[in-house]
Amino acid sequence: MKDSPKDIETLIDLMAKLPGLGPRSARRAVLHLVKKRGALLTTLADAMTQVALSVRECLNCGNLSTEETCPICAAESRANGQLCVVEDVADLWAMERSGLFKGRYHVLGGVLSALDSVGPEDLRIPRLKDRLKAEGIEEVILALSATVDGQTTAHYIAEEIENRVRVTSLARGMPVGGELDYLDEGTISAALAGRKSV
Amino acid sequence: MKDSPKDIETLIDLMAKLPGLGPRSARRAVLHLVKKRGALLTTLADAMTQVALSVRECLNCGNLSTEETCPICAAESRANGQLCVVEDVADLWAMERSGLFKGRYHVLGGVLSALDSVGPEDLRIPRLKDRLKAEGIEEVILALSATVDGQTTAHYIAEEIENRVRVTSLARGMPVGGELDYLDEGTISAALAGRKSV
Repeated sequence: MKDSPKDIETLIDLMAKLPGLGPRSARRAVLHLVKKRGALLTTLADAMTQVALSVRECLNCGNLSTEETCPICAAESRANGQLCVVEDVADLWAMERSGLFKGRYHVLGGVLSALDSVGPEDLRIPRLKDRLKAEGIEEVILALSATVDGQTTAHYIAEEIENRVRVTSLARGMPVGGELDYLDEGTISAALAGRKSV
Repeated sequence: MKDSPKDIETLIDLMAKLPGLGPRSARRAVLHLVKKRGALLTTLADAMTQVALSVRECLNCGNLSTEETCPICAAESRANGQLCVVEDVADLWAMERSGLFKGRYHVLGGVLSALDSVGPEDLRIPRLKDRLKAEGIEEVILALSATVDGQTTAHYIAEEIENRVRVTSLARGMPVGGELDYLDEGTISAALAGRKSV
């Protein structure tokens, strides 16, 4: 777009790097921002600066927080001996939305991947081992994605720590609202293997 | 999400106001930003502040520009007597991408809409009339959306100015790559009415 100002071009290029936005939707978003300059554009810029300044990773678990230790690690009430291992902060939030898990988390910051050359030393796995003893963990719940990389990571972690604590992983089966007809063979096979008496 | 820091919540709420982003994709985008804090988050915040400070509407045509008069209005070479009326800056950019129109633009800043109570005085229509004489316009090309509101606006503008200049509008018909089977009746009827000898 030769005739749009350079500053706008720069902003569009940056916005297009966000997941879920391509060049076209980034352009639309930027035009919307410019239209709502007073109400949205400066507010958004300030909110980003604020996040860049204040938000950091919890030194203990890797959750995002404005403190060195996140509210979950700081809460004595969450020290119930259970530790839920997740790939990402988004997964931690998803677990928290369910409101069912009352223990603490450990955010790996990714999964092992030979293709992207992510090894154990690139994830927060050493820190995980340290925490087992320090926090008196009795059960590690592996809540990792049901993908090849996710399961490789789960197996790796389980092998590393299963002689020290009980290691469990989330159940596989039909999602709520799922229709048998639309399920893949892997899920059906997992649901069959994990069947329960009613 | 009770356990994500408040600053992140604020940022997610703001991002979710962008067109094309909902709460879920805004969350994903914000987590991506936080991960790429150094490379993306601060750069993006700065780019937004820069746009908020530097970009304004061209006083003549309504295009976005860092100057009082946009490059298109400033270019003598674009004063060819043709004026293309578009709804929005995005439409101006779309026309410019085609690279075929060599005249100047007039950005209305919206279309007439009884539902949203947008009247002629809310659009840049008075300024359009002023420009006709001041810039010696011979032809006004109405490049407005083929929607009810777009066409109402086109008719309104045509009635206001057709005694002074030639008023044309973009052709209706099959889009390039369009398949007859997938076209609506309105388009087929317009394509039929506008048929040409080969």
